[in-house]
Amino acid sequence: MSLLNGKKAVVIGGDLRQLEVIRMLLEQQAEVSLAGYDELAQVPEGAVKVQLEQGPLAQADAIILPVAGTGNDGSVESSFTSESLMLTEELVAALPKHAIIFTGIAKSYLREICERYTLALVEILAREDVAIYNSIPTAEGAVMIAIQHTDVMLHGSRCIVLGLGRVGTTLARTLKALGADVAVCVHKPDAYARAYEMGLQPFYPPDLPQQAEQAGILFNTVPAPVITRDVISRLPRQALIIDLASHPGGTDFAYAKAQGIQALPALGLPGIVAPRSAGRIIGNVIVEMLDALS
Amino acid sequence: MSLLNGKKAVVIGGDLRQLEVIRMLLEQQAEVSLAGYDELAQVPEGAVKVQLEQGPLAQADAIILPVAGTGNDGSVESSFTSESLMLTEELVAALPKHAIIFTGIAKSYLREICERYTLALVEILAREDVAIYNSIPTAEGAVMIAIQHTDVMLHGSRCIVLGLGRVGTTLARTLKALGADVAVCVHKPDAYARAYEMGLQPFYPPDLPQQAEQAGILFNTVPAPVITRDVISRLPRQALIIDLASHPGGTDFAYAKAQGIQALPALGLPGIVAPRSAGRIIGNVIVEMLDALS
Amino acid sequence: MSLLNGKKAVVIGGDLRQLEVIRMLLEQQAEVSLAGYDELAQVPEGAVKVQLEQGPLAQADAIILPVAGTGNDGSVESSFTSESLMLTEELVAALPKHAIIFTGIAKSYLREICERYTLALVEILAREDVAIYNSIPTAEGAVMIAIQHTDVMLHGSRCIVLGLGRVGTTLARTLKALGADVAVCVHKPDAYARAYEMGLQPFYPPDLPQQAEQAGILFNTVPAPVITRDVISRLPRQALIIDLASHPGGTDFAYAKAQGIQALPALGLPGIVAPRSAGRIIGNVIVEMLDALS
Amino acid sequence: MSLLNGKKAVVIGGDLRQLEVIRMLLEQQAEVSLAGYDELAQVPEGAVKVQLEQGPLAQADAIILPVAGTGNDGSVESSFTSESLMLTEELVAALPKHAIIFTGIAKSYLREICERYTLALVEILAREDVAIYNSIPTAEGAVMIAIQHTDVMLHGSRCIVLGLGRVGTTLARTLKALGADVAVCVHKPDAYARAYEMGLQPFYPPDLPQQAEQAGILFNTVPAPVITRDVISRLPRQALIIDLASHPGGTDFAYAKAQGIQALPALGLPGIVAPRSAGRIIGNVIVEMLDALS
Repeated sequence: MSLLNGKKAVVIGGDLRQLEVIRMLLEQQAEVSLAGYDELAQVPEGAVKVQLEQGPLAQADAIILPVAGTGNDGSVESSFTSESLMLTEELVAALPKHAIIFTGIAKSYLREICERYTLALVEILAREDVAIYNSIPTAEGAVMIAIQHTDVMLHGSRCIVLGLGRVGTTLARTLKALGADVAVCVHKPDAYARAYEMGLQPFYPPDLPQQAEQAGILFNTVPAPVITRDVISRLPRQALIIDLASHPGGTDFAYAKAQGIQALPALGLPGIVAPRSAGRIIGNVIVEMLDALS
Repeated sequence: MSLLNGKKAVVIGGDLRQLEVIRMLLEQQAEVSLAGYDELAQVPEGAVKVQLEQGPLAQADAIILPVAGTGNDGSVESSFTSESLMLTEELVAALPKHAIIFTGIAKSYLREICERYTLALVEILAREDVAIYNSIPTAEGAVMIAIQHTDVMLHGSRCIVLGLGRVGTTLARTLKALGADVAVCVHKPDAYARAYEMGLQPFYPPDLPQQAEQAGILFNTVPAPVITRDVISRLPRQALIIDLASHPGGTDFAYAKAQGIQALPALGLPGIVAPRSAGRIIGNVIVEMLDALS
Repeated sequence: MSLLNGKKAVVIGGDLRQLEVIRMLLEQQAEVSLAGYDELAQVPEGAVKVQLEQGPLAQADAIILPVAGTGNDGSVESSFTSESLMLTEELVAALPKHAIIFTGIAKSYLREICERYTLALVEILAREDVAIYNSIPTAEGAVMIAIQHTDVMLHGSRCIVLGLGRVGTTLARTLKALGADVAVCVHKPDAYARAYEMGLQPFYPPDLPQQAEQAGILFNTVPAPVITRDVISRLPRQALIIDLASHPGGTDFAYAKAQGIQALPALGLPGIVAPRSAGRIIGNVIVEMLDALS
Repeated sequence: MSLLNGKKAVVIGGDLRQLEVIRMLLEQQAEVSLAGYDELAQVPEGAVKVQLEQGPLAQADAIILPVAGTGNDGSVESSFTSESLMLTEELVAALPKHAIIFTGIAKSYLREICERYTLALVEILAREDVAIYNSIPTAEGAVMIAIQHTDVMLHGSRCIVLGLGRVGTTLARTLKALGADVAVCVHKPDAYARAYEMGLQPFYPPDLPQQAEQAGILFNTVPAPVITRDVISRLPRQALIIDLASHPGGTDFAYAKAQGIQALPALGLPGIVAPRSAGRIIGNVIVEMLDALS
C-alpha cells in the first residue's frame, strides 16, 4: 500500500473512534483537518483544527463523518466540542466533485444531499466485511454484559442465540469457546447445518418457546419481534435477555419488565467496549479506499 | 416427525452408504425394495430383494439411486451385485406421476428422462445444507491423509487452505483446532473478515505464490486451476498437496510430479472415511422429504 | 447419592453464595438453621432462623461458616444482619464431637479452636478440585475486567498470563478461545511443554521484561512479586495489569500508578461475578462430605 | 543458545527420527559420527560414517542411542544397516568420564553398565516435558487410526478417553476440538474438575462399564488392565478400542477378539506418524543438555 501523501481529509465530529481514524490517516501522511474538535486537548501531531465556515472543504479529497452520520437537519455530533456543528448544503456544495464522504450509516438528509451534488457517499457499516469485523467487539461486549448481569458462570450455562448471521455466528462461537452450552435459532437448513458443524445446537423458530424454558441467557441478533410474550412467559425467572438487534430490537421489553425478566438492549457495543478497535476497522476502509483512488 | 408408514421406496444399487439409508427408511416403517442387492448376505429385516423387470417401480413413491446417479446409458452401479443394473426409459415410464427420484448428482441422461416424464428429481448433493454436512467427513478425511502422508505433526505445521466455502470453512476450523498454523486464500473482503474472526490468517490469491514458500500442506477446495506451476515451484521440497476439489481438481498434478512434490487428489472422502455418516446425511434428506409429502 | 435426611446443619453468616449452599442442603433434605440471617426477607422453605446463644449448635452435624471463615477474634461476617456475630469458644465447646466445621479458609483462631476441641475442620478452598472449579468464574471475571478496562478487543490483543497453575491454565485457555494472542510465563519445562501443546506461547521468567514490551494485558496469577519495576517500566503506555494473585498480589502497584500504568487487583472474583456458581461449588463439597459420613 | 562447536557426538543406530537429531546436531556445528549407517545413501553434509571398533568413542562427548536404547545383550537396532550393531562393555569402558549417553528408554543392561563406569545416562522419554511433547503426535496418530477404522465421523461420535495424564489430556482436547462428544475416565477429584473445566464429561472408574454401553471409540492411556471383560461385553458391536498404553496395554485383547470387538494396540505413534517431529523433540533435549555443559 502506498502512502496517502497529499490527500486532504477533513474529519467532522465524532467520538473516541475517530481519534484512531485520525491517527491512521496521519500515519499514512494524509493532511488531516479537524472540525468540531476545539475541546480536544492533545491534537495529534500533524493534524490542524479548523472551522468549517473558513472553507477547508473546498480542497478536501475526503470528508469523514461520525459513525452516526448527520441528523436530518445536517447536525453532526462531536464528543470534542460543545458548539453546534452542521454539515449544511452550502458546505457540501463547495466540495470538489471527486471528494468522498465517509460515514457509518447515512440518514435521508445525507443521502439526498450527496445525490444532489453527485458526490460519492460511503456507508462503511453497510459493508459486509465491516459488519463481520464489528461482530467481534459486539460479541465481546455481549459477553461482558452477560458476566456482569448474571450470578452464574457462562461456562456450563444454557445460552440461546437468535440468528446465525454476522453477529450471531461470531457470538455463538465465542460463547461456545467460553464453555457455554449454546443453542442457536436459525431459519434455513444451511444455517442449521453450519451450526451443527460448529458444535452448536440448532433449532428452528417454532421451537423457540419450548427452548426458552431451559434458557439461562437469550441473545437476540434478529431485527424483528422474535422475543415475544410467548417466549418471555416461558423463560425461567432468572433468565437474562440481551438484545443486540438494531433499534428497536426484537424484544417485547415492556412485557419482560412486567414479568420481572431482566432484558437489556445493547447497541453500539464496538464503540463502547473497544473504541480504538472500532476506529481501526473504520480507518482501514477509509485508508484502503483513498489509497485505491491514487 | 410422523412415520413413513406405507410409503414404498425402491433402492436401486449403491454402496455402503445405501445400507444406512435403507436402515433409516425401515426404521420409519417405509416398505423398502432392493434392486441390485443379490450378493448382500444379510438383508435388513423388513426389506425385500426385487428384480426391476418384475415391476416394483409401478407402485413406488420413491426411487433411491446411488450418490453417483446413473451413467449416461442408464447404468447404475452397485457394490452388491455383479449383474448389470439399468434404469431404462421403459422403467421410468412405468413410475407413478407422484414418485420422487433421489440421487446424489444427476448426469444429463437422468435429468432428461425425468423431465420427459415430469418426475421430481432430487439431487441431494446439490443442496447447500448437505454440502455443509458432507464437509465434516471431508475435513476428517483430509486430516487423516495429512497425518499419513507427512512426517511431521499437524500441530504447529503451516497449512494453507485455498477457498473458504463450505469445505474450506470446515477444514480450516478443523486444522486450527488441531493446533496447525492455518492460512486461507480467499477472494472477497467478507471471507477475509470471517477468516480473521475465526483466528485464521487470510490472504488474497495474488499472494499465493509467496505464501507457498512457507507451506507445509496445501489443501485445495477450489474447482479451478489454482495450484499452478508458479505456486508449485515455490513450495518447499517436503510440502504436500491435498486436492479436495471435484474432478479434475485445481492442481497441475503433472508438474507437481515432475518437481517431486507429493500431490494427492482426494475425492469422495465422506463415502470412504465415514460411509455410515454419509449415508445418514443422505437418508435424513430422503426421510424428511418423504415425510413432508404425507 | 443418598439424601441427607435428618442431618442438622447450622449456617453461620455468609453472603449470596451461602444462599445457594442453603438451597442445596434443603434440596438434600438436611435440617438447616440460619444464624445471622435476620434481615433475609425470604427464608428458603424448610430453613429456620436461630440465635446462636439459644443452643442450636449442641445438635449440629455440620457448621457452615462463610468463605472467609472467622476473624481472629471469632467474628463472623454476614451480608444478612447488622448485628455482630461471633463464634465463641464457648459455642465451639458445645458442639458434638462428630460435627464438621466447613469454611473456605481458616485463620489461626479457627484452626486452634478446632484443634483444641478435636473437631474436624474442612477448608474448602484449600482443595485442589475446588481451586480448579473456582478458576472458571475467576477467568470469566478477569475477562470481564479486561473488556471493560481496555479500549481494544481482546481478539487479536497480546495477553501475557503469569503462571500456568490452576487459574493460569483456565485463564490462558479462555483468552485463547476468545481469539487473543496469548503468551504464558512458566517456571518448569513440563509447564512449557503443556503450554506449547495448548497453542500458547510459553516463555521463562528471565524473558518477562522483554515480553512486557509487546504486552496489551498482563494477567498475574503468581503470589510473589513478579510484576516488578523492571517489568512495569517496559510496558506500553496503554497496557493493563490485572492481578489475580491473593493479597497483596504480585504487582508493584505504587510504581505502576506512578508510571501511569493501569493496574487492578482482582480478588474474590467467583463470589463477585458468579455467586450462585461459587455457592454451588462449595455446596457440592459439603453435600458430598456429609453424604459420605452417613 | 551458543553453538556446540567442537562437541563430538557419536550416533549409534536408530531410525528416521535419528536423521532429524543428526541434522540438528550438525546445525549446531557439533562433530557427528554415525555408527550403523552404512546403508544410508545420503550422508548429511558434515557427518562421517564410522565403525565402533575403530575407536570413535574414545573422544566422544555424547553417545546417542535409538529411542529403544539397547537390548539386554547390548544390541542396538538400526534401520540403516543390515549388520549387527553392539554396544559392548568394552566400548563403554573406553568412553571419557564426562561423556553423556542419550537414549529414549534404558533396559537394565544399559543402566547397569553406565552405573558401573559412572557415566551419565539420560533417558529422554522419561522426562515429563518430553512425554507431553510426544503426546501431540500420539494424539494425532490416534485420531488417524480412529478415522481409518470407523465408518462414522469423529464429529458427534461418543469417545471415551481412559486417563487424563499427559497423553489423555492432549488426546481428549484434540477429540473435542474435532467435534467429538468426549467423556474421560479419571481417578481423582482434581482431574475430574479439570476435565469439567475443559468441557469434557468426567466420570470415575466404577461407572466405566455403564459408560461403555454408549461408546463409539474407547481410547486407553492407562497402563493397567482397565478394559476388562465386563467393559468389553457392554460395548456396542461397532465400537472400536484404541489402546495407547505401553505394552501390554490395558485391554483384554483376546476377549475383545472373541466378542468381535475391534481392538487395536497403538504404540510408538510419534515415530510412526511424525518421525521428523519426534526426532526434533529428542534433538531439542540433546542439544539443550550439551549446550548447558559448555
